[in-house]
Amino acid sequence: MSMPVRGYECAPWELRWRGLAVDQLQRTESAFALSNGHVGIRGTLEEGEPRGLPGTYLNGFYEEHELPYAEGGYGYPEAGQTIVNVTDGKIIRLLVEDEPFDMRYGVATVHERVLDFRRGTLTRLTEWESPTGRRVRVRTQRLVSFTQRAVVALRYEVEPLDDDMQLVLQSDLLANEPIERDTKDPRVAAALEAPLRAEFSLAEDYRAVLVHQTKRSGLRMAAAMDHQIEAPDGLRTGITAEDDLARLTVAVDVPRGKRLRLTKFLAYGWSQQRSIPALRAQVDAALAGALQTGWDGLLAEQHAFLDDFWATGDVEVDGDPELQQAVRFALFHLLQAGARGESRAIPGKGLTGPGYDGHAFWDTETFVLPVLTYTVPEAARDALRWRHSTLDKAKDRAGQLGLRGAAFPWRSINGAECSAYWPAGTAAFHVSADIAEATARYLAVTGDREFERQAGTEILVETARLWASLGHFDSHGRFRIDGVTGPDEYSAVADNNVYTNLMAHRNLREAAASCERMPEVASALGVTEAEAGTWREAADRIYVPYDDERGVHPQSEGFTQHLDWDFAATPPDAYPLLLNYPYFDLYRKQVVKQADLVLAMHMCGDSFTPEEKARNFAYYEARTVRDSSLSAGTQAVIAAEVGHLDLAYDYLGEAALTDLHDVHRNVRNGLHMASLAGAWHGVVAGFGGMRDHEGELSFAPRLPSALARIEFRMCLRGSRFAVEIHADRASYRLLSGKSVEISHHGTPCTVTEVPVTLPIPPIDPGPPPTQPAGRAPARRHPAHLRTAAPAPQP
Amino acid sequence: MSMPVRGYECAPWELRWRGLAVDQLQRTESAFALSNGHVGIRGTLEEGEPRGLPGTYLNGFYEEHELPYAEGGYGYPEAGQTIVNVTDGKIIRLLVEDEPFDMRYGVATVHERVLDFRRGTLTRLTEWESPTGRRVRVRTQRLVSFTQRAVVALRYEVEPLDDDMQLVLQSDLLANEPIERDTKDPRVAAALEAPLRAEFSLAEDYRAVLVHQTKRSGLRMAAAMDHQIEAPDGLRTGITAEDDLARLTVAVDVPRGKRLRLTKFLAYGWSQQRSIPALRAQVDAALAGALQTGWDGLLAEQHAFLDDFWATGDVEVDGDPELQQAVRFALFHLLQAGARGESRAIPGKGLTGPGYDGHAFWDTETFVLPVLTYTVPEAARDALRWRHSTLDKAKDRAGQLGLRGAAFPWRSINGAECSAYWPAGTAAFHVSADIAEATARYLAVTGDREFERQAGTEILVETARLWASLGHFDSHGRFRIDGVTGPDEYSAVADNNVYTNLMAHRNLREAAASCERMPEVASALGVTEAEAGTWREAADRIYVPYDDERGVHPQSEGFTQHLDWDFAATPPDAYPLLLNYPYFDLYRKQVVKQADLVLAMHMCGDSFTPEEKARNFAYYEARTVRDSSLSAGTQAVIAAEVGHLDLAYDYLGEAALTDLHDVHRNVRNGLHMASLAGAWHGVVAGFGGMRDHEGELSFAPRLPSALARIEFRMCLRGSRFAVEIHADRASYRLLSGKSVEISHHGTPCTVTEVPVTLPIPPIDPGPPPTQPAGRAPARRHPAHLRTAAPAPQP
Repeated sequence: MSMPVRGYECAPWELRWRGLAVDQLQRTESAFALSNGHVGIRGTLEEGEPRGLPGTYLNGFYEEHELPYAEGGYGYPEAGQTIVNVTDGKIIRLLVEDEPFDMRYGVATVHERVLDFRRGTLTRLTEWESPTGRRVRVRTQRLVSFTQRAVVALRYEVEPLDDDMQLVLQSDLLANEPIERDTKDPRVAAALEAPLRAEFSLAEDYRAVLVHQTKRSGLRMAAAMDHQIEAPDGLRTGITAEDDLARLTVAVDVPRGKRLRLTKFLAYGWSQQRSIPALRAQVDAALAGALQTGWDGLLAEQHAFLDDFWATGDVEVDGDPELQQAVRFALFHLLQAGARGESRAIPGKGLTGPGYDGHAFWDTETFVLPVLTYTVPEAARDALRWRHSTLDKAKDRAGQLGLRGAAFPWRSINGAECSAYWPAGTAAFHVSADIAEATARYLAVTGDREFERQAGTEILVETARLWASLGHFDSHGRFRIDGVTGPDEYSAVADNNVYTNLMAHRNLREAAASCERMPEVASALGVTEAEAGTWREAADRIYVPYDDERGVHPQSEGFTQHLDWDFAATPPDAYPLLLNYPYFDLYRKQVVKQADLVLAMHMCGDSFTPEEKARNFAYYEARTVRDSSLSAGTQAVIAAEVGHLDLAYDYLGEAALTDLHDVHRNVRNGLHMASLAGAWHGVVAGFGGMRDHEGELSFAPRLPSALARIEFRMCLRGSRFAVEIHADRASYRLLSGKSVEISHHGTPCTVTEVPVTLPIPPIDPGPPPTQPAGRAPARRHPAHLRTAAPAPQP
Repeated sequence: MSMPVRGYECAPWELRWRGLAVDQLQRTESAFALSNGHVGIRGTLEEGEPRGLPGTYLNGFYEEHELPYAEGGYGYPEAGQTIVNVTDGKIIRLLVEDEPFDMRYGVATVHERVLDFRRGTLTRLTEWESPTGRRVRVRTQRLVSFTQRAVVALRYEVEPLDDDMQLVLQSDLLANEPIERDTKDPRVAAALEAPLRAEFSLAEDYRAVLVHQTKRSGLRMAAAMDHQIEAPDGLRTGITAEDDLARLTVAVDVPRGKRLRLTKFLAYGWSQQRSIPALRAQVDAALAGALQTGWDGLLAEQHAFLDDFWATGDVEVDGDPELQQAVRFALFHLLQAGARGESRAIPGKGLTGPGYDGHAFWDTETFVLPVLTYTVPEAARDALRWRHSTLDKAKDRAGQLGLRGAAFPWRSINGAECSAYWPAGTAAFHVSADIAEATARYLAVTGDREFERQAGTEILVETARLWASLGHFDSHGRFRIDGVTGPDEYSAVADNNVYTNLMAHRNLREAAASCERMPEVASALGVTEAEAGTWREAADRIYVPYDDERGVHPQSEGFTQHLDWDFAATPPDAYPLLLNYPYFDLYRKQVVKQADLVLAMHMCGDSFTPEEKARNFAYYEARTVRDSSLSAGTQAVIAAEVGHLDLAYDYLGEAALTDLHDVHRNVRNGLHMASLAGAWHGVVAGFGGMRDHEGELSFAPRLPSALARIEFRMCLRGSRFAVEIHADRASYRLLSGKSVEISHHGTPCTVTEVPVTLPIPPIDPGPPPTQPAGRAPARRHPAHLRTAAPAPQP
């Protein structure tokens, strides 16, 4: 290893890392992961080693395993699901004369990798001198196609830098790749060893295919590769296929000044039902398409797809180049996670790593889908289609729990509950309201009546039925929801969680409204006037506890009576607290892992007065430790709303840089999609003040002192428009489509092609709130603005 | 099998079962178990088969095993403990000519087994005709010695009934006996297979010894046997020893009219530290003692020990012979569980079976120790010495949980927490107050200052420290204890559980009082005036929530606001509810598994007015399903106090007959010691109205209509006295020792050798309370009073 660790370089449209840094590989593999939402490949070096954690994932393809309980209980899920590292097709090994190209040996005089946000490719340039002094230049480029969802393509070029040289390339399909076990951190998912059973293999010419099936879940997958070779004369090739390995070997003598270029096309497919021949045909067809389009064609399609995305969704941040890069990195990865999922989940880590076992959680609907709804609405729709496709499982689960309607799982790949700790899983019923909210938002933003008819109304109705059966009217006529867990994971199983109750309130109203729009669907679902009336009544009478003595909303009933956590006695290395304190201690005290009441003030802001928001925010700021990556983005939004703009800026920085700075020290297992989405929320809902309560789009923009200008784009019912914010004014202009009705700091406004510029009123938020000792967000001081060095751990 | 199932026969001083009933074997093995608190052997047939579940247990001897968690957490116990079925010495097999004596074949014309409560023996008489028509009479008798705690003795006699006959006896020591796995019922403990590793074996003459060590916990045990043989001439014997089997074989031709008699002496010992030679010497010495005493001597000692026990502790019930038998059965087994434990725990099942993994729980201190305290106080003292010996582990656990003082485990064999589900385990902190309460009661009843100095004060101080750190003063100056679990297992992790808070209140006061009595001990423990002052203040200001609207105490804060369980929609076969409904559903609704607030009214009755007791009792009666065997005895006590005497009688019947009627269908895994104790409480605290608040002994006797007379005995500070109750009057008389001060229905009274007879005032309790549909206790109708047939399942 010849170069020092340098970290990511700052640039507006790319992410570049110079040097190798073996101990940083696993982390950078996550950031350099490519995906289209259907196939994901981590940014592992082509030669396979050194490596952090190799990973190739197919959305929805998982293995089952037993969930053990020392003390079981009724309704505990018995089977867990874990995303499988499927057949690895990105491996291309190089032999330079008789020396394997391995960067742990010899000297790399040049080594850099670049993720290009506009081209959608990962490129690499390495100049390497072998231990015996032979020098080669290696250039690679890879993409996971947004336009041909089964296809991955890689180009590998190698040239001798001094003498003529014999070069051998081995291009593999490798199944059941051995991978290392990770820590005992409960947040890091369990890995599975050799989950694939070989069913079929074949190799001929430059092409090979392997078909495998998981041992327990019985899912079948096929991976195929084909190649194009450009080489000097004298090429020798051979291809072989075993159960778990197919390999094309290419050998040639390359004169100085010439090069060997291998273009590798990969196709992946999987199915729960299709036969071996059918799957084989499917990947063969995908390969044929890719070959027909060709390498240059795939590159061009990729570029065009991304141009379109940025035209709708780009966010410009002037005054903080690192933040600018981080926000685009975030948007790029959100697009990668959702673009071509097509009725599969968007996992918490996307397809960038095995973290959280590859499960999807509520944060997809709460944080990721709003971003997609306003930028790539088809992707949001497809993710909601996945939820709709799992309704039978959610209804079964509700039945098992003694409830009506649909209880969506806390964590899952195929829609069945996989949470083995019910107080923080099954009891967190808000997931069903979060799904309903994402559905209602998608319907309001797109006006997509076809989706509403096919899926939207049913999701809203079945979740409303859940709430109607979960809550009850008390002797004072209030609708209570007892014994549930809200978003904050340092509390559990409490009565009348404000977030949950307000989200249930919206869920019940939206279901009734959708049934009015879709009377035939409602009738087919058996919804009567009386049932819808009960929903409205429950919504109207929802109980929202309030602590008169302290003048704040308790997160859940009784919360503000609990003992305050002793932050002064909590050493810095005791965070995250869940690794050093028992749940019993966390649950019974006033300590908040992540925004809960504060999230309620974002999602259901129309249920709070500005004064309540200010008091609540200050109260929970003093008790929130942000041991979850889900929190900073939301705190940025509410900090901005109540006028603490520099604090909001700090939180936005933390959310946007969570993965690039590895704030939670677990990026090695994948990126945090919700935190990446939090960067968008911090800009758009925070400094843009965007809210969409009841389908009305409003803005209340304000900039922090460090930023000169923000511009972001959104689409609403097919219209694209841009919002440009300066310190004293904001402009709204239509980019395409019909005019859009919005409000600016409460003033109604029509957005047309002629920009409307409106002044920003001043705000006096009073003194800034305090955070628990040592848990304030890192300040984005001016000195930080122009460097990409990792920030200190919080 | 030749005889029908008949069940137990009713008799005042014994438990007799005629006939075999293979499918009832496991259940009767529990009832026929013999134990002295140190060694326990289940009532398995000598010939080993047919059998239910063989079991030989040494108190405190366990194997460790991993506790698996699909999702782990900080502070979760990693190692579980399970009682080990140790080397089985009760096996004596018989060969009649060439036919093995096996009651599944041939015909048993006579077969009965009798547990004798006064002799402390289990006897058997079987007359059996082999498949080929050979007839023998087998008589056996066995005892686990109360006076020589390491010793078990068996006598086996066989005589031919027709012709002369060759008889062969094989007397075994068998280790790692294979046993069947049981159901998945979470209440039934996991069994371990072949936990013993052989270390030493030797056989010579009629004597053999086996030494084994557990594989993981590293505990070592020795079992030795010696024999005396009385036989006709021509005896041939042989003895062998392998790793897991030692066997004495005895063969002889026995003429008609003669018999073969084998007397087998067994000695058991175990240690965590002692060497093989040391343990071998220990059991050899015990055997030598037993042989020196001899069979007749052991029988005589056993009888004398029991005479003394019954003289102090007998309970007479006139008018219900079945109940009379059940109460003596209960007392006999409680004595067996505790008599010679000597600084070991009293497990939830005693040493009668492997249920609950052999763990001890809070119910030992709450239900079992009061019985022993008033009848065999040394046994109560020894059980508390066990808790004291585990203080270091309890202090470590408190530290791990972020608390001071001692947090005793929810379930354990060696004192380390083994509960793998913290909401119903670790969070049930009341166990520490229960231990403190048992300590305080023992001190008040015995005045044992030596124990107080050595152990009592320390237990009280360290548990008081726990409460001082677990609770906090709120803004109104109330001392709150949040986020804990009370006795009711259908609720968990709630604020200000009334039972817990009131028990903590007593714990804090008793600690302060003990420190005043033992200033040197307090000083050595670092207790300052200020600390004791804080305890008193916390006790004085303990928060006891009350629901003004409903006029009742909520079990925990908010409980009475929760939705009522829908009992009408709950089918009879859905009980126990925990096997058919998720915890989430149980916890959030008003459904009570077992007395909680009602237990508080028994244990801390001086904190409630009579009117509160009546209202609370009615309220919780309507919501209590008694899915726990711990409940009926307590409900009997409070039903009697509030004047519902016939209902109390029903509950007393259920508590007393829980095991004999197998009400919870799990007697096969051992008897329910706490429920057996509940029978005593139902009589003494229920119909006797005995309370001992603040060390003052009071009685408020009243009989139900079906009973003509109750007499029970107690000892207080060395004085024995009897309480005799008739419908209209009660008499108190001293049996030995100094006079005793008590009160009768509020009237002070001195108990002397001249009986004092006082009238019983009438009570009008109003209409009887209702229970959930189908969950009323079985009525003890007159028709039931003279039959021993099993009652219908509730």
